[in-house]
Amino acid sequence: MTETAPDATHDPARRSWVPGADGHADFPIQNLPLGIFSPPGGAPRGGVAIGDQVLDLPAALAAGLFAGEAARAAGAASAKTLNSFFALGAGPRRALRVRLSEILSLGSDDRARAEPCLRPAADCTLHLPAQVGDYTDFYVGIHHATNIGKVFRPDNPLLPNYKYVPIGYHGRASSLRVSGTGIRRPKGQLKAPEAEAPRFAPCERLDYELELGIWVGPGNELGEPVPVGEAASHVAGYCLLNDWSARDIQAWEYQPLGPFLAKNFGSTLSPWVVTPEALAPFRIAQPPRPEGDPAPLPYLLDEADQRAGAFDLELEVLLATARMREQGLPPHRVSLSNTRHMYWTVAQMIAHHTSNGCNLQPGDLLGSGTISAPDPTGFGSLLETTRGGREPLVLPSGESRRFLEDGDEVTLRLRARRDGAAPIGFGECRATILPAR
Amino acid sequence: MTETAPDATHDPARRSWVPGADGHADFPIQNLPLGIFSPPGGAPRGGVAIGDQVLDLPAALAAGLFAGEAARAAGAASAKTLNSFFALGAGPRRALRVRLSEILSLGSDDRARAEPCLRPAADCTLHLPAQVGDYTDFYVGIHHATNIGKVFRPDNPLLPNYKYVPIGYHGRASSLRVSGTGIRRPKGQLKAPEAEAPRFAPCERLDYELELGIWVGPGNELGEPVPVGEAASHVAGYCLLNDWSARDIQAWEYQPLGPFLAKNFGSTLSPWVVTPEALAPFRIAQPPRPEGDPAPLPYLLDEADQRAGAFDLELEVLLATARMREQGLPPHRVSLSNTRHMYWTVAQMIAHHTSNGCNLQPGDLLGSGTISAPDPTGFGSLLETTRGGREPLVLPSGESRRFLEDGDEVTLRLRARRDGAAPIGFGECRATILPAR
Repeated sequence: MTETAPDATHDPARRSWVPGADGHADFPIQNLPLGIFSPPGGAPRGGVAIGDQVLDLPAALAAGLFAGEAARAAGAASAKTLNSFFALGAGPRRALRVRLSEILSLGSDDRARAEPCLRPAADCTLHLPAQVGDYTDFYVGIHHATNIGKVFRPDNPLLPNYKYVPIGYHGRASSLRVSGTGIRRPKGQLKAPEAEAPRFAPCERLDYELELGIWVGPGNELGEPVPVGEAASHVAGYCLLNDWSARDIQAWEYQPLGPFLAKNFGSTLSPWVVTPEALAPFRIAQPPRPEGDPAPLPYLLDEADQRAGAFDLELEVLLATARMREQGLPPHRVSLSNTRHMYWTVAQMIAHHTSNGCNLQPGDLLGSGTISAPDPTGFGSLLETTRGGREPLVLPSGESRRFLEDGDEVTLRLRARRDGAAPIGFGECRATILPAR
Repeated sequence: MTETAPDATHDPARRSWVPGADGHADFPIQNLPLGIFSPPGGAPRGGVAIGDQVLDLPAALAAGLFAGEAARAAGAASAKTLNSFFALGAGPRRALRVRLSEILSLGSDDRARAEPCLRPAADCTLHLPAQVGDYTDFYVGIHHATNIGKVFRPDNPLLPNYKYVPIGYHGRASSLRVSGTGIRRPKGQLKAPEAEAPRFAPCERLDYELELGIWVGPGNELGEPVPVGEAASHVAGYCLLNDWSARDIQAWEYQPLGPFLAKNFGSTLSPWVVTPEALAPFRIAQPPRPEGDPAPLPYLLDEADQRAGAFDLELEVLLATARMREQGLPPHRVSLSNTRHMYWTVAQMIAHHTSNGCNLQPGDLLGSGTISAPDPTGFGSLLETTRGGREPLVLPSGESRRFLEDGDEVTLRLRARRDGAAPIGFGECRATILPAR
C-alpha cells in the first residue's frame, strides 16, 4: 500500500474561496479531481473540478501558480490527455494536490492569480481523460457474479475458479465514451431458447452495469509482474463506468470465448479522475471472506492491502424515462450498492493481471465488473433487478421496465461519506439510449 | 469486394533490377509489402521489402521518386508507424504499389535515384508496423474449433452458435511484439483436474497458435456498421500472428468470460504488411459449407465475397529446439495448413464485428484464430497435434514435445502460390521461449 494517510488536504474544516465549493456534493476542496475539458471555443486541456468551476491548468501554470514537483505534474496534466500525468505516479500527483488545496483554500494569497483561471463547468465540454490503450473488465462483484450465473447457468451459478481467480477479460477501448454521449441500441444475433435459428434484430434486453473504473498509472514492462504489495502505486485514479450490455446478444454469443458484441458497442465513463489521495479517508479493510472460502494464493495476498485496500463508497443507479422527464419527475433510484461488495481489491486485480508478465500502460482502464449489493435494492444491473426480465421494475411514472427502452436515461453516481471526513462524489456517469439505426 | 483484379504489377514475368529480388521466396517485385524499420543508428520509418533489401520510403520521397496519390501514400507511410497510411484506404495504396513496381522494375529509368535508397534488410531493425488500438481475435478455423472443443468439452466440441456467429473476443494490444522478440514463459494459476486447489507456477502447457493477422484500414464511426459488401475496403493488409497460449492457465481461468492471462503475456507478429493488392491472385471462392450447415444470415452474406472473398495461402509452423540448433539441424515443419480452412471470410469478420456499431480504427488488428487443416499434419497448435499432450511429437533430434520447452523456437511462414502467379511469402513470424522468471 502506498496510499497516504488522511492529511490537511482532507481536513473537513478546510474551506475554499470558490463560490459553491464548500458543501458541494461532488467537488469540495477535499476532492480536487482532474479531467480534460474544452472551454467555449478552446482546445482540450487539463483541469481540476472545484465546486461548479474548472481550474484551467495550463492557464494556472502560465500564471506562475506552480513550482517544483507540482509544476511538473501540472505541466503533464495540461496536455490534451492525462496519459503523461498518469505516467508520473504518486509523488508529483501528491505535490499537485497539496498545492491545489493551498491555492484554492479560503484565505489563500493565490486567489487573485487563480480566480481568472476558473471556468464555469456548465460552459465547458468534458472529454475522456486519457487515451485508453487497453481496457480490461473484471468480475469482482461476487453478488453480481452469483446472480448473473443463476441466469446463464442455473445449476452452477458461481464457478469453482471464482474464489481463486480475479476473473477478468479484455474489453473494447475504441468505444469508450464520456458521460453525456448517447448510446445507440445495438443490433445483433438474437436466439430465443426455443427458436431453431437466430435472427438479426435490435437488442431487446438492453442493460446497464454499475462499475468502478480504475485508471492505470505508471504500469510495468512486459514480462515483469507487479507484486501485490506494490500494485496500489500503479493506480492513477478512479471513475464510474457503465458497461452497457445486450443480454440477448450475450446469451447467444458468449461461449466459448466470452462476451464480445454484447458489450463493445459502447461503455460510458464519468469524466473526472478522482485520485487515490482523495479517496484515502474512505479506505477500509478487505471484508472478511465468508467461512469456508479459500484464502487468496500468496501472490494475491498483502497484509497492508488486506488491512486497508478496500473502499467504502456508495454507488447509485438512477433511471429517468422520456415520460418521467416530460412529467418533470426526478430520476428514480433503482439501486444503491457499495464498493464493499468487491471480492478482490484493486491491488489484487492489478497483481493478477500482471502475474503472467502482461504489461499495463499509463491510461489503461480497468473495470471492477458490476458491483451488486446482496439484496435486490442494490443490484447493479436490470438483469438482476428484474430477475432476467421476469419481475418488471415499476417506476414513479407508472411505467415498468424489464430492460431499457429507447429514451431511457441512466445515471451512475458515487458518494463517499464517512464520519470525520468531508463527503465527496465522482460527478455523473450518464447516457441516454438512442433507437437502433 | 473492392480488391483489384491481377494487373501488370502481378505479372510473373516482371523482373526487378534489385539483386536477389527475382525468385525471392517472400519478397519478389510482385509482393511489395510495407513495414517500419530502423537503419543502423537511424530512427524508425516506413519501408518496402524487395528481395533482401528495404526501400527507405522517406529517402525515396526526398529523392523525388513519387508524385500525386503515390506521393501522398509514400508520405503517410514514411512516418514511424503505418497508422496514417492505413487510414488512407485503397486508392493511394494502389497508386503507391503501381509506382513502386515501376521504380523497381528491370529497365526502370528510376534506378539511379532509387538505388541509394535501398538498405540491406539484415542491417535493419524491424518494428511493429502500427500502433495497435484494439486487437480482436476470431475463431474462424473450424477444424481448430472442433479439435480444441474436444479437449475442453469432449461431449460438446462445436457449440451451436459456431455456424451462425463469427466468434471473436478482445485480445491484449499492449503485449503484441514483432517477430524475433523472445517470449517469456508465463506463470499462472494451474489446477490439475484431480487437485483440490490451484497452485501458482510456471506454465507447463505452453503452446503456439498459427493465425492470419489482418490490419484494419479506414474503419468506421461508432454506431455505423460496415456492410459486408464494403468490408474488404477496410483491410489495409495481412501478416502472420502467433497467439501464444498457456493451455493450463486457460483451462482453469476461461469460464465464464473467456481467455485472459492464458493469452495476454505476448503475441508475435510478422513485421511486413502484405497488401490486399499483392494477394489478389490468391483469392478463391469461399469453400462451400458442408451439407446441412445453415446459410450465413443476410448481414454476413455478399455475393462477391462468396465468389472471391477467401484465400488460398499455405501456412506453416516450424519448430527448432535448442538441441536441434546446436546439432545444426534445420527447423522441423510441424504443420502445413491453408487459409482455405477459414469458415468465415475476413469481410464477414469485419461485418460481424461492426454489426452492433462497434468502431474499428486504422491500425486495429484482427486475428483469424488458429487455422488448422482437417488432418493432424496441418493442426495449428500443439494442443491439437499432440492431442492435449497425450501423443508427443517426435523431432529429428530424437527429442519429443508435448508442449513447448524453454529454448524452443517457433517460426510461422506463409507461402502464396498458384498457377500463373509469381509466388510470394510473408516473411517470418518467429520467437524463442525464454524461461519463466
